[in-house]
Amino acid sequence: MRNIKLILEYDGSKYHGWQYQDNAWTVQQELAEAIRKLTGETVMPDGAGRTDAGVHALGQVACFKTQSNIPAEKFALALNSLLSPGVCVLRSEEAPLDFHPRFSAKGKHYRYLILNRKQRSPLWENRAWHVRDELDLEAMAKAASYLEGTHYFRAFCASGHQNKTFERTITHSAWTFQGEILCYDTKGNGFLYNMVRIMTGAMVDIGRGRYAPEVILEAFETGDRNTLGMTAPAMGLYLVEVFY
Amino acid sequence: MRNIKLILEYDGSKYHGWQYQDNAWTVQQELAEAIRKLTGETVMPDGAGRTDAGVHALGQVACFKTQSNIPAEKFALALNSLLSPGVCVLRSEEAPLDFHPRFSAKGKHYRYLILNRKQRSPLWENRAWHVRDELDLEAMAKAASYLEGTHYFRAFCASGHQNKTFERTITHSAWTFQGEILCYDTKGNGFLYNMVRIMTGAMVDIGRGRYAPEVILEAFETGDRNTLGMTAPAMGLYLVEVFY
Repeated sequence: MRNIKLILEYDGSKYHGWQYQDNAWTVQQELAEAIRKLTGETVMPDGAGRTDAGVHALGQVACFKTQSNIPAEKFALALNSLLSPGVCVLRSEEAPLDFHPRFSAKGKHYRYLILNRKQRSPLWENRAWHVRDELDLEAMAKAASYLEGTHYFRAFCASGHQNKTFERTITHSAWTFQGEILCYDTKGNGFLYNMVRIMTGAMVDIGRGRYAPEVILEAFETGDRNTLGMTAPAMGLYLVEVFY
Repeated sequence: MRNIKLILEYDGSKYHGWQYQDNAWTVQQELAEAIRKLTGETVMPDGAGRTDAGVHALGQVACFKTQSNIPAEKFALALNSLLSPGVCVLRSEEAPLDFHPRFSAKGKHYRYLILNRKQRSPLWENRAWHVRDELDLEAMAKAASYLEGTHYFRAFCASGHQNKTFERTITHSAWTFQGEILCYDTKGNGFLYNMVRIMTGAMVDIGRGRYAPEVILEAFETGDRNTLGMTAPAMGLYLVEVFY
């Protein structure tokens, strides 16, 4: 028995998220189907992050057990010939048998893209959140810097979650402003359910002047989701990398 | 009678090119249909560049005559509510009655994007040409510099064209290499049919080592399309801006 680790890129707009669903097509199902065609084995690959419908991945990590003797690094090419254009294996390699993409992860890197201009963009459709309002970028940068560090993130967690602890450490949290495209990068040891989208939604509300940047500090204190505003839509979020 | 000028962005993968066709959906038709719904007038808008199927636009220019008294700058928002997600009017303004987007144009800016890595990319699908081979970027940059200036471009013109003169002036021709994405920008006073795609195809063949960069100079001399290699595919090409 071997454990094969895959690095995946996918266009989240083509799938109903990562995780298996009975009545909708997901990345996990498409991958399981390709593995079955290739090896004849029925497995459900584990993923590092259960990305929601619409969320993209530049470096999702998935693993599955197999008895096949295909060389580990050949799985990428072989699976790609069976996968649709919406998903691609960037790299495949052998991992220790006890390696689990989610439980073994030490951290993750997420990115959020915003298209900040008056008119929508056909070329950024489903790839970035379209925000028409003029934004106070300085206030947003300040808010991003407040998010760095070890904090109590309960206010940044959507209901319906299974999280039991709410302390997380964010090691990087910063915006890069490239004309109409506002790019937020964050790295941390773990993220709660919808955490990056709630962080981004709060920072956009701060950019719109609805809150002061210090609402972030207030949210750490209250631990109450209602302290913050909207959740940013899924289409702007990218799982960039998983750290082990 | 007024002449309304529109600046358009579109995702070329959603259309069979700019120009009207009997049996396929094009940008020109979609725009004509939206104008008809808005003003009740049947017109066929002129475009600055007849982009082929798959070619994208960040700043295509189109014009149409109307008797409507809608303020010129309001056409953008009004038409966008009638256009599908694949196309968007970025700006609308009134132009002199004798202004023609193609005949009045003094020059154009085109961009060509290449994804240069081993695996395909779901997120760049239909947005960049996927080239797997390792490329000699220095040779490609040299070839790009040879293209600058006033030259006899007959060898860079696809058959089936209606071009009668072949001298053109390229004022800018350069690559920017951003990791896996190779970006070629060119500006000039006019481009022959498929010229940017033939230029790019030749430079990629040069990057692959099939030709020396000096094949560009040879092509200026021979004026023979067969001096050069392949035509780069439509999906990587963007009409960025039209100059007046």
